[in-house]
Amino acid sequence: MKIDVLRNVFEHNDRAAAENRERLDTLGVTCINLLGGAGSGKTSVLEAVLPMLTDSLSVAVLEGDLVTTADAERIAALNVPVVQLLTDGGCHLNATIVQHAFDRIPLADLNLLIVENVGNPICPANFDLGEHLRISILSVAEGHDKPAKYPLLFKEAALVLLTKCDLLPHTDFDVAAAQQELRRINPNADVISTDVKTRSGFDRLAEWIRKGCRKPVAR
Amino acid sequence: MKIDVLRNVFEHNDRAAAENRERLDTLGVTCINLLGGAGSGKTSVLEAVLPMLTDSLSVAVLEGDLVTTADAERIAALNVPVVQLLTDGGCHLNATIVQHAFDRIPLADLNLLIVENVGNPICPANFDLGEHLRISILSVAEGHDKPAKYPLLFKEAALVLLTKCDLLPHTDFDVAAAQQELRRINPNADVISTDVKTRSGFDRLAEWIRKGCRKPVAR
Repeated sequence: MKIDVLRNVFEHNDRAAAENRERLDTLGVTCINLLGGAGSGKTSVLEAVLPMLTDSLSVAVLEGDLVTTADAERIAALNVPVVQLLTDGGCHLNATIVQHAFDRIPLADLNLLIVENVGNPICPANFDLGEHLRISILSVAEGHDKPAKYPLLFKEAALVLLTKCDLLPHTDFDVAAAQQELRRINPNADVISTDVKTRSGFDRLAEWIRKGCRKPVAR
Repeated sequence: MKIDVLRNVFEHNDRAAAENRERLDTLGVTCINLLGGAGSGKTSVLEAVLPMLTDSLSVAVLEGDLVTTADAERIAALNVPVVQLLTDGGCHLNATIVQHAFDRIPLADLNLLIVENVGNPICPANFDLGEHLRISILSVAEGHDKPAKYPLLFKEAALVLLTKCDLLPHTDFDVAAAQQELRRINPNADVISTDVKTRSGFDRLAEWIRKGCRKPVAR
Protein backbone atom coordinates (compact mmCIF):
# COMPACT_ATOMS: atom_id res chain seq x y z
CA MET A 1 0.00 0.00 0.00
CA LYS A 2 2.70 2.47 1.07
CA ILE A 3 4.86 1.50 -1.93
CA ASP A 4 1.95 2.03 -4.33
CA VAL A 5 1.34 5.52 -3.02
CA LEU A 6 5.00 6.43 -3.43
CA ARG A 7 5.11 4.96 -6.90
CA ASN A 8 2.12 7.05 -7.97
CA VAL A 9 3.65 10.21 -6.58
CA PHE A 10 6.91 9.64 -8.43
CA GLU A 11 5.20 8.56 -11.69
CA HIS A 12 3.08 11.69 -11.66
CA ASN A 13 6.15 13.81 -10.93
CA ASP A 14 8.25 12.16 -13.64
CA ARG A 15 5.54 12.83 -16.23
CA ALA A 16 5.38 16.52 -15.29
CA ALA A 17 9.21 16.71 -15.24
CA ALA A 18 9.41 15.27 -18.76
CA GLU A 19 6.85 17.85 -19.95
CA ASN A 20 8.88 20.64 -18.33
CA ARG A 21 12.13 19.46 -19.92
CA GLU A 22 10.49 19.19 -23.35
CA ARG A 23 9.12 22.74 -23.11
CA LEU A 24 12.49 24.08 -21.92
CA ASP A 25 14.28 22.18 -24.72
CA THR A 26 11.94 23.60 -27.35
CA LEU A 27 12.69 27.11 -26.12
CA GLY A 28 16.42 26.43 -25.67
CA VAL A 29 16.31 27.31 -21.97
CA THR A 30 18.81 25.58 -19.68
CA CYS A 31 17.37 24.77 -16.24
CA ILE A 32 19.51 24.31 -13.12
CA ASN A 33 18.14 22.76 -9.91
CA LEU A 34 20.11 24.14 -6.95
CA LEU A 35 20.01 21.81 -3.94
CA GLY A 36 21.41 21.91 -0.42
CA GLY A 37 20.61 21.81 3.27
CA ALA A 38 19.16 24.69 5.28
CA GLY A 39 21.73 27.44 5.67
CA SER A 40 24.19 25.84 3.25
CA GLY A 41 24.36 29.13 1.34
CA LYS A 42 22.15 28.61 -1.73
CA THR A 43 20.73 32.14 -1.88
CA SER A 44 24.09 33.74 -1.07
CA VAL A 45 25.64 31.82 -3.97
CA LEU A 46 22.95 33.19 -6.30
CA GLU A 47 23.48 36.73 -4.98
CA ALA A 48 27.19 36.40 -5.79
CA VAL A 49 26.96 34.75 -9.21
CA LEU A 50 23.83 36.28 -10.80
CA PRO A 51 25.42 39.74 -11.36
CA MET A 52 28.24 37.95 -13.22
CA LEU A 53 25.75 36.26 -15.58
CA THR A 54 23.12 38.87 -16.37
CA ASP A 55 25.25 40.85 -18.84
CA SER A 56 25.47 37.86 -21.16
CA LEU A 57 22.50 35.65 -20.21
CA SER A 58 18.80 36.26 -19.75
CA VAL A 59 18.15 34.62 -16.36
CA ALA A 60 15.12 34.02 -14.12
CA VAL A 61 14.95 32.34 -10.72
CA LEU A 62 12.30 30.24 -8.98
CA GLU A 63 12.72 30.32 -5.19
CA GLY A 64 11.43 27.37 -3.16
CA ASP A 65 10.67 27.99 0.49
CA LEU A 66 8.28 26.78 3.19
CA VAL A 67 6.64 29.98 4.39
CA THR A 68 8.67 33.16 3.76
CA THR A 69 9.43 35.33 0.72
CA ALA A 70 12.79 36.43 2.13
CA ASP A 71 14.90 34.67 -0.50
CA ALA A 72 12.84 35.94 -3.45
CA GLU A 73 13.23 39.49 -2.10
CA ARG A 74 17.03 39.05 -2.09
CA ILE A 75 16.94 37.93 -5.76
CA ALA A 76 14.48 40.67 -6.80
CA ALA A 77 16.92 43.22 -5.35
CA LEU A 78 19.34 42.15 -8.12
CA ASN A 79 16.73 43.01 -10.79
CA VAL A 80 16.44 39.33 -11.77
CA PRO A 81 12.89 38.07 -12.50
CA VAL A 82 11.91 35.77 -9.63
CA VAL A 83 8.87 33.80 -8.49
CA GLN A 84 8.53 32.58 -4.91
CA LEU A 85 7.24 29.00 -4.71
CA LEU A 86 5.83 28.44 -1.22
CA THR A 87 5.36 24.81 -0.24
CA ASP A 88 3.39 25.69 2.92
CA GLY A 89 5.57 23.43 5.02
CA GLY A 90 6.25 20.90 2.27
CA CYS A 91 9.79 19.55 2.26
CA HIS A 92 10.64 19.72 -1.46
CA LEU A 93 9.60 21.19 -4.79
CA ASN A 94 8.04 19.00 -7.45
CA ALA A 95 7.71 19.29 -11.23
CA THR A 96 4.09 20.40 -11.09
CA ILE A 97 4.84 23.38 -8.83
CA VAL A 98 7.60 24.41 -11.27
CA GLN A 99 5.24 23.94 -14.24
CA HIS A 100 2.73 26.34 -12.70
CA ALA A 101 5.48 28.95 -12.33
CA PHE A 102 6.38 28.85 -16.05
CA ASP A 103 3.47 31.19 -16.83
CA ARG A 104 4.79 33.81 -14.41
CA ILE A 105 8.20 34.30 -16.05
CA PRO A 106 9.24 35.36 -19.58
CA LEU A 107 10.25 31.76 -20.34
CA ALA A 108 10.71 32.14 -24.13
CA ASP A 109 13.15 35.03 -23.63
CA LEU A 110 15.42 33.16 -21.19
CA ASN A 111 18.75 31.41 -21.62
CA LEU A 112 18.79 30.16 -18.07
CA LEU A 113 16.26 29.26 -15.38
CA ILE A 114 17.64 28.54 -11.90
CA VAL A 115 15.40 26.79 -9.38
CA GLU A 116 16.54 27.13 -5.77
CA ASN A 117 15.03 24.16 -3.98
CA VAL A 118 13.78 23.98 -0.38
CA GLY A 119 16.63 23.81 2.16
CA ASN A 120 16.72 20.09 2.87
CA PRO A 121 19.47 17.56 2.15
CA ILE A 122 17.11 14.61 1.59
CA CYS A 123 13.70 14.95 -0.04
CA PRO A 124 14.37 17.41 -2.92
CA ALA A 125 16.92 15.01 -4.45
CA ASN A 126 14.12 12.49 -5.08
CA PHE A 127 12.14 14.81 -7.35
CA ASP A 128 13.15 15.55 -10.94
CA LEU A 129 11.87 19.05 -11.78
CA GLY A 130 12.70 18.77 -15.48
CA GLU A 131 16.10 20.40 -14.95
CA HIS A 132 19.12 19.80 -17.19
CA LEU A 133 21.75 20.22 -14.48
CA ARG A 134 21.84 19.78 -10.74
CA ILE A 135 24.16 21.81 -8.56
CA SER A 136 24.44 20.48 -5.00
CA ILE A 137 25.87 22.54 -2.18
CA LEU A 138 27.95 21.39 0.77
CA SER A 139 28.83 24.01 3.36
CA VAL A 140 32.16 23.31 5.04
CA ALA A 141 30.45 24.17 8.35
CA GLU A 142 28.35 21.00 7.94
CA GLY A 143 31.32 18.63 8.09
CA HIS A 144 33.14 16.47 5.54
CA ASP A 145 31.12 13.39 6.53
CA LYS A 146 27.97 14.72 4.87
CA PRO A 147 28.46 13.24 1.35
CA ALA A 148 28.62 9.75 2.91
CA LYS A 149 25.54 10.46 5.03
CA TYR A 150 23.40 12.11 2.32
CA PRO A 151 24.61 10.37 -0.86
CA LEU A 152 21.50 11.03 -2.97
CA LEU A 153 22.02 14.80 -2.63
CA PHE A 154 25.34 14.44 -4.48
CA LYS A 155 24.76 11.39 -6.67
CA GLU A 156 23.19 13.17 -9.65
CA ALA A 157 24.93 16.53 -9.30
CA ALA A 158 26.82 17.84 -12.33
CA LEU A 159 28.58 20.23 -9.96
CA VAL A 160 29.20 20.18 -6.22
CA LEU A 161 29.84 23.59 -4.69
CA LEU A 162 31.78 23.77 -1.46
CA THR A 163 30.55 26.94 0.26
CA LYS A 164 31.67 29.04 3.25
CA CYS A 165 35.30 28.08 2.58
CA ASP A 166 36.37 31.17 4.58
CA LEU A 167 35.39 29.06 7.64
CA LEU A 168 37.87 26.28 6.76
CA PRO A 169 40.59 27.52 9.16
CA HIS A 170 38.01 27.49 11.99
CA THR A 171 36.56 23.99 11.39
CA ASP A 172 37.95 20.47 11.16
CA PHE A 173 36.49 20.05 7.66
CA ASP A 174 38.85 17.84 5.61
CA VAL A 175 38.57 18.96 1.96
CA ALA A 176 40.50 15.94 0.63
CA ALA A 177 38.28 13.50 2.54
CA ALA A 178 35.13 15.22 1.25
CA GLN A 179 36.41 15.15 -2.34
CA GLN A 180 37.37 11.48 -2.07
CA GLU A 181 33.90 10.56 -0.83
CA LEU A 182 32.26 12.71 -3.52
CA ARG A 183 34.30 10.92 -6.21
CA ARG A 184 33.15 7.58 -4.81
CA ILE A 185 29.47 8.61 -4.94
CA ASN A 186 29.65 10.57 -8.18
CA PRO A 187 32.92 10.32 -10.17
CA ASN A 188 31.72 12.75 -12.85
CA ALA A 189 30.79 15.76 -10.75
CA ASP A 190 32.89 18.90 -10.99
CA VAL A 191 33.80 20.48 -7.64
CA ILE A 192 34.29 24.22 -7.07
CA SER A 193 35.20 25.84 -3.74
CA THR A 194 33.52 29.17 -2.99
CA ASP A 195 33.40 31.81 -0.33
CA VAL A 196 31.06 34.80 -0.51
CA LYS A 197 33.25 36.84 1.84
CA THR A 198 36.24 37.10 -0.52
CA ARG A 199 34.11 36.21 -3.60
CA SER A 200 36.54 33.43 -4.44
CA GLY A 201 35.34 30.68 -6.78
CA PHE A 202 32.54 32.66 -8.43
CA ASP A 203 34.47 33.37 -11.64
CA ARG A 204 34.78 29.60 -12.08
CA LEU A 205 31.12 29.06 -11.19
CA ALA A 206 29.93 31.73 -13.65
CA GLU A 207 32.07 30.17 -16.40
CA TRP A 208 30.73 26.68 -15.57
CA ILE A 209 27.14 27.94 -15.81
CA ARG A 210 27.77 29.82 -19.08
CA LYS A 211 29.26 26.67 -20.63
CA GLY A 212 26.17 24.70 -19.56
CA CYS A 213 23.75 27.06 -21.30
CA ARG A 214 22.38 25.87 -24.61
CA LYS A 215 20.90 28.91 -26.33
CA PRO A 216 23.56 31.02 -28.11
CA VAL A 217 24.77 33.47 -25.49
CA ALA A 218 24.81 37.18 -26.42
CA ARG A 219 28.18 38.79 -25.62
CA MET B 1 -6.85 11.95 -2.08
CA LYS B 2 -3.44 13.33 -1.19
CA ILE B 3 -4.85 14.79 2.06
CA ASP B 4 -6.39 11.43 3.02
CA VAL B 5 -3.08 9.65 2.61
CA LEU B 6 -1.29 12.16 4.79
CA ARG B 7 -4.01 11.98 7.42
CA ASN B 8 -3.69 8.21 7.60
CA VAL B 9 0.08 8.42 7.97
CA PHE B 10 -0.20 10.92 10.82
CA GLU B 11 -3.04 9.06 12.57
CA HIS B 12 -1.07 5.84 12.50
CA ASN B 13 2.01 7.65 13.81
CA ASP B 14 0.11 9.44 16.57
CA ARG B 15 -1.30 6.13 17.81
CA ALA B 16 2.17 4.55 17.97
CA ALA B 17 3.56 7.71 19.63
CA ALA B 18 0.89 7.57 22.33
CA GLU B 19 1.75 3.90 22.97
CA ASN B 20 5.44 4.79 23.22
CA ARG B 21 4.79 7.62 25.68
CA GLU B 22 2.56 5.42 27.84
CA ARG B 23 5.23 2.70 28.00
CA LEU B 24 7.95 5.25 28.83
CA ASP B 25 5.70 6.86 31.48
CA THR B 26 5.02 3.50 33.12
CA LEU B 27 8.76 2.88 33.35
CA GLY B 28 9.57 6.45 34.40
CA VAL B 29 11.86 6.99 31.42
CA THR B 30 12.19 10.51 30.04
CA CYS B 31 12.53 10.63 26.25
CA ILE B 32 14.16 13.50 24.37
CA ASN B 33 13.80 13.95 20.59
CA LEU B 34 16.87 15.79 19.26
CA LEU B 35 16.18 17.61 15.99
CA GLY B 36 18.22 19.73 13.60
CA GLY B 37 19.47 20.10 10.05
CA ALA B 38 22.31 18.12 8.49
CA GLY B 39 25.62 19.13 10.03
CA SER B 40 24.00 21.29 12.72
CA GLY B 41 26.02 19.39 15.35
CA LYS B 42 23.56 16.92 16.90
CA THR B 43 26.01 14.05 17.38
CA SER B 44 28.78 16.38 18.58
CA VAL B 45 26.40 17.77 21.21
CA LEU B 46 25.71 14.23 22.42
CA GLU B 47 29.43 13.42 22.51
CA ALA B 48 29.98 16.48 24.70
CA VAL B 49 27.04 16.09 27.09
CA LEU B 50 26.66 12.30 27.53
CA PRO B 51 29.82 11.90 29.65
CA MET B 52 28.42 14.60 31.98
CA LEU B 53 25.18 12.63 32.46
CA THR B 54 26.21 8.99 32.72
CA ASP B 55 27.49 9.21 36.31
CA SER B 56 24.03 10.11 37.59
CA LEU B 57 21.64 8.88 34.87
CA SER B 58 21.17 5.61 33.04
CA VAL B 59 21.04 6.74 29.40
CA ALA B 60 20.54 5.08 26.01
CA VAL B 61 20.53 6.64 22.55
CA LEU B 62 18.68 5.84 19.33
CA GLU B 63 20.50 7.21 16.28
CA GLY B 64 18.48 8.03 13.17
CA ASP B 65 20.35 8.11 9.86
CA LEU B 66 19.73 7.39 6.18
CA VAL B 67 22.43 4.87 5.33
CA THR B 68 25.49 4.95 7.62
CA THR B 69 26.23 3.77 11.15
CA ALA B 70 28.84 6.49 11.70
CA ASP B 71 26.89 8.36 14.39
CA ALA B 72 26.04 5.22 16.38
CA GLU B 73 29.73 4.29 16.39
CA ARG B 74 30.58 7.70 17.88
CA ILE B 75 28.03 7.14 20.68
CA ALA B 76 29.11 3.52 21.30
CA ALA B 77 32.66 4.81 21.80
CA LEU B 78 31.32 6.58 24.93
CA ASN B 79 30.07 3.25 26.31
CA VAL B 80 26.47 4.40 26.02
CA PRO B 81 23.95 1.79 24.78
CA VAL B 82 22.93 2.79 21.25
CA VAL B 83 20.80 1.46 18.42
CA GLN B 84 21.20 2.70 14.86
CA LEU B 85 17.86 3.31 13.15
CA LEU B 86 18.44 3.35 9.38
CA THR B 87 15.65 4.88 7.33
CA ASP B 88 17.15 3.68 4.01
CA GLY B 89 16.84 7.15 2.51
CA GLY B 90 13.70 8.12 4.45
CA CYS B 91 13.69 11.72 5.63
CA HIS B 92 12.51 11.33 9.23
CA LEU B 93 11.99 8.87 12.07
CA ASN B 94 8.49 7.82 13.08
CA ALA B 95 7.00 6.39 16.25
CA THR B 96 6.84 2.83 14.88
CA ILE B 97 10.57 2.73 14.10
CA VAL B 98 11.26 3.91 17.67
CA GLN B 99 8.83 1.32 19.06
CA HIS B 100 10.73 -1.48 17.33
CA ALA B 101 13.97 -0.25 18.92
CA PHE B 102 12.57 -0.46 22.47
CA ASP B 103 13.28 -4.21 22.54
CA ARG B 104 16.96 -3.63 21.73
CA ILE B 105 17.75 -1.44 24.76
CA PRO B 106 17.46 -2.01 28.54
CA LEU B 107 14.41 0.29 28.65
CA ALA B 108 13.25 -0.55 32.20
CA ASP B 109 16.68 0.34 33.60
CA LEU B 110 16.85 3.78 31.98
CA ASN B 111 16.26 7.28 33.29
CA LEU B 112 16.75 8.85 29.92
CA LEU B 113 16.34 7.88 26.26
CA ILE B 114 17.67 10.31 23.67
CA VAL B 115 16.58 9.92 20.05
CA GLU B 116 18.78 11.72 17.54
CA ASN B 117 16.56 12.31 14.54
CA VAL B 118 17.58 12.33 10.86
CA GLY B 119 19.42 15.52 9.85
CA ASN B 120 16.62 17.49 8.25
CA PRO B 121 15.06 20.78 9.36
CA ILE B 122 11.57 19.99 8.01
CA CYS B 123 10.07 16.49 8.02
CA PRO B 124 11.10 15.14 11.47
CA ALA B 125 9.24 17.97 13.21
CA ASN B 126 5.94 16.60 11.85
CA PHE B 127 6.31 13.24 13.59
CA ASP B 128 5.69 12.75 17.32
CA LEU B 129 7.86 9.83 18.46
CA GLY B 130 6.30 9.63 21.92
CA GLU B 131 8.98 11.92 23.37
CA HIS B 132 8.48 14.12 26.43
CA LEU B 133 10.83 16.89 25.36
CA ARG B 134 12.12 18.19 22.06
CA ILE B 135 15.50 19.83 21.74
CA SER B 136 16.00 21.67 18.45
CA ILE B 137 19.41 22.72 17.21
CA LEU B 138 20.37 25.82 15.25
CA SER B 139 23.98 26.07 14.13
CA VAL B 140 25.17 29.67 13.93
CA ALA B 141 26.78 28.74 10.58
CA GLU B 142 23.25 28.30 9.16
CA GLY B 143 22.27 31.95 9.67
CA HIS B 144 19.91 33.77 12.03
CA ASP B 145 17.09 33.77 9.46
CA LYS B 146 16.51 30.01 9.88
CA PRO B 147 13.91 30.14 12.70
CA ALA B 148 11.67 32.31 10.49
CA LYS B 149 12.21 29.96 7.54
CA TYR B 150 11.76 26.64 9.40
CA PRO B 151 9.30 27.58 12.17
CA LEU B 152 7.97 24.08 12.81
CA LEU B 153 11.45 22.88 13.79
CA PHE B 154 11.42 25.33 16.71
CA LYS B 155 7.71 25.65 17.50
CA GLU B 156 7.43 22.68 19.86
CA ALA B 157 10.97 22.71 21.25
CA ALA B 158 11.37 22.86 25.04
CA LEU B 159 14.96 23.92 24.42
CA VAL B 160 16.73 25.49 21.47
CA LEU B 161 20.48 24.88 21.36
CA LEU B 162 22.64 27.34 19.47
CA THR B 163 25.66 25.33 18.33
CA LYS B 164 29.08 26.13 16.83
CA CYS B 165 29.14 29.46 18.71
CA ASP B 166 32.93 29.51 18.30
CA LEU B 167 32.18 30.48 14.68
CA LEU B 168 30.22 33.61 15.73
CA PRO B 169 33.16 36.00 15.17
CA HIS B 170 33.55 34.61 11.65
CA THR B 171 29.89 34.83 10.56
CA ASP B 172 27.24 37.56 10.39
CA PHE B 173 24.90 35.54 12.64
CA ASP B 174 22.91 37.99 14.79
CA VAL B 175 22.19 36.24 18.12
CA ALA B 176 19.69 38.90 19.27
CA ALA B 177 17.75 38.65 15.99
CA ALA B 178 17.65 34.84 16.22
CA GLN B 179 16.45 34.97 19.83
CA GLN B 180 13.78 37.54 19.01
CA GLU B 181 12.43 35.36 16.19
CA LEU B 182 12.56 32.24 18.39
CA ARG B 183 10.54 34.05 21.09
CA ARG B 184 7.94 35.00 18.47
CA ILE B 185 7.60 31.38 17.27
CA ASN B 186 7.92 29.73 20.69
CA PRO B 187 7.88 32.06 23.73
CA ASN B 188 8.41 29.20 26.19
CA ALA B 189 11.56 27.60 24.80
CA ASP B 190 14.78 27.87 26.79
CA VAL B 191 17.83 28.85 24.75
CA ILE B 192 21.39 27.69 25.50
CA SER B 193 24.48 28.66 23.48
CA THR B 194 27.07 25.92 23.03
CA ASP B 195 30.43 25.35 21.41
CA VAL B 196 32.12 21.94 21.41
CA LYS B 197 35.56 23.51 20.89
CA THR B 198 35.71 25.28 24.27
CA ARG B 199 32.94 23.01 25.74
CA SER B 200 31.01 26.12 26.76
CA GLY B 201 27.30 25.71 27.50
CA PHE B 202 27.38 21.98 28.26
CA ASP B 203 27.21 22.43 32.05
CA ARG B 204 23.94 24.28 31.52
CA LEU B 205 22.69 21.68 29.02
CA ALA B 206 23.51 18.77 31.36
CA GLU B 207 21.68 20.52 34.22
CA TRP B 208 18.69 21.23 31.96
CA ILE B 209 18.49 17.55 30.95
CA ARG B 210 18.87 16.32 34.56
CA LYS B 211 16.01 18.59 35.66
CA GLY B 212 13.85 17.16 32.88
CA CYS B 213 14.33 13.56 33.98
CA ARG B 214 11.48 12.03 35.90
CA LYS B 215 12.83 8.92 37.55
CA PRO B 216 14.69 9.70 40.82
CA VAL B 217 18.26 10.33 39.81
CA ALA B 218 21.02 8.41 41.62
CA ARG B 219 23.79 10.75 42.81
